[in-house]
Amino acid sequence: MTHPDIHTLAAFAASLADAARPVLMRYYRTGVDIDTKSDKSPVTIADQEAERRLRILIEERFPEHGIAGEEFGEVRADAEYVWSLDPIDGTKAFITSRVMFGTLIGLMRNQEPILGVIDMPVIDDRWIGGKGFTTRLNGSPCAPRPKASLSEATVVATHPDMFQGPDGDAFRRVDAASKLTLYAGDCYNFGLVASGEVDVAIEAGLADHDIIAVVPVVEAAGGIVTDWKGNAIRPGPLHNVVVSGDARVHDEVLSLIAGG
Amino acid sequence: MTHPDIHTLAAFAASLADAARPVLMRYYRTGVDIDTKSDKSPVTIADQEAERRLRILIEERFPEHGIAGEEFGEVRADAEYVWSLDPIDGTKAFITSRVMFGTLIGLMRNQEPILGVIDMPVIDDRWIGGKGFTTRLNGSPCAPRPKASLSEATVVATHPDMFQGPDGDAFRRVDAASKLTLYAGDCYNFGLVASGEVDVAIEAGLADHDIIAVVPVVEAAGGIVTDWKGNAIRPGPLHNVVVSGDARVHDEVLSLIAGG
Repeated sequence: MTHPDIHTLAAFAASLADAARPVLMRYYRTGVDIDTKSDKSPVTIADQEAERRLRILIEERFPEHGIAGEEFGEVRADAEYVWSLDPIDGTKAFITSRVMFGTLIGLMRNQEPILGVIDMPVIDDRWIGGKGFTTRLNGSPCAPRPKASLSEATVVATHPDMFQGPDGDAFRRVDAASKLTLYAGDCYNFGLVASGEVDVAIEAGLADHDIIAVVPVVEAAGGIVTDWKGNAIRPGPLHNVVVSGDARVHDEVLSLIAGG
Repeated sequence: MTHPDIHTLAAFAASLADAARPVLMRYYRTGVDIDTKSDKSPVTIADQEAERRLRILIEERFPEHGIAGEEFGEVRADAEYVWSLDPIDGTKAFITSRVMFGTLIGLMRNQEPILGVIDMPVIDDRWIGGKGFTTRLNGSPCAPRPKASLSEATVVATHPDMFQGPDGDAFRRVDAASKLTLYAGDCYNFGLVASGEVDVAIEAGLADHDIIAVVPVVEAAGGIVTDWKGNAIRPGPLHNVVVSGDARVHDEVLSLIAGG
């Protein structure tokens, strides 16, 4: 089996994002009918059509690679290389034309996230980064900003109601200690940490396809991604995650989550 | 004194939005220093520079008109025509590169809002509407979508913490009765009601410059704008507002606000 280098893989991942964009844009703001999944998150025709397209392209180029996608599940999940696909991360933003939805394309090698793309079709922003491939925002290297303390930090989260029960208590401690907390954003928030526009993105209950692509983007920019206990993200059950630009703030957030 | 027709005024208002855009974009995502006002909302150099530019253009073209701007206050506030200016509505979105900030340009005649522009520089969306000038989104007429009930409606609000004390109780009744409630958005949310992407935008504590421009945009599209008691918006102290696409949903929201 071939071992393509990271630059080849990054170029291919970018071509996947290129392929997804026109599919999504064809359905954006067209009042497309909204299907409702069992978990009540809306999913659109666009989501399925885009994932189908990406799967075909991966099968053509890397037939030995596995694929794990939001819409159509897993094939060859035990392959050395497995692609993680979420054609529309932020479906609620998509269906309300609130622009902060994106396509997540990740690649794992032996379960470890090694390459990621966060692509924003309407906003026209694209982050790509990976192991040995410094994260770029729209082609230019980017980095998080330093921030000594959570009291000076901007925290972003997609929705306050995402945090229920003890997760809600933990989130409220972080919110109370931050300088500013803003909602909405989905995958865009993670990109903004990688390029130093915000300091912390915190989320609960993410599936693999919501976060696998994010790990290399943020880490190759110099940021930190862990679960709420400080562990690295590997595919598995739902993830509560903290994504930070500065390790000092990351540690502060983890401490507040652990018990205030 | 001349009485320019609504089309002349709309074309001029559009030219003001054209003039503001490059000023804002010059400072967007440049890590511009953030000033903090007494109310803690961040304000940028861009905000002031853009308002200065708009004021010059208004003074040149309509020297007898009044101006009420967020940054530099009022001149000729008792004129028949008074412009309402908010160069950056959504300063927190602006400073975090979260794209949903916009320029609000409104015109009142004898205190009544008669023309409005909601302009989104990064997203490249522009709503213009007024009395006798059907609202257009990017040049095409737009309209809200019908929605029979709040239980089927998408509600948007900039931030849950905007609603404090009894306002918070009222908002939570609306949130609980909606199909979906999403945060962030500022003036973009009002435009999305006008073009039928969302159903209700609800906000508290808005200044005149946050809402005067919105009234004609939404009303000339066929939507409804009132305060929380159902009254029309006129310049005055801080406004709690409801903006809806369908009168049935609007009435339901006002009832829930009034007491559930």
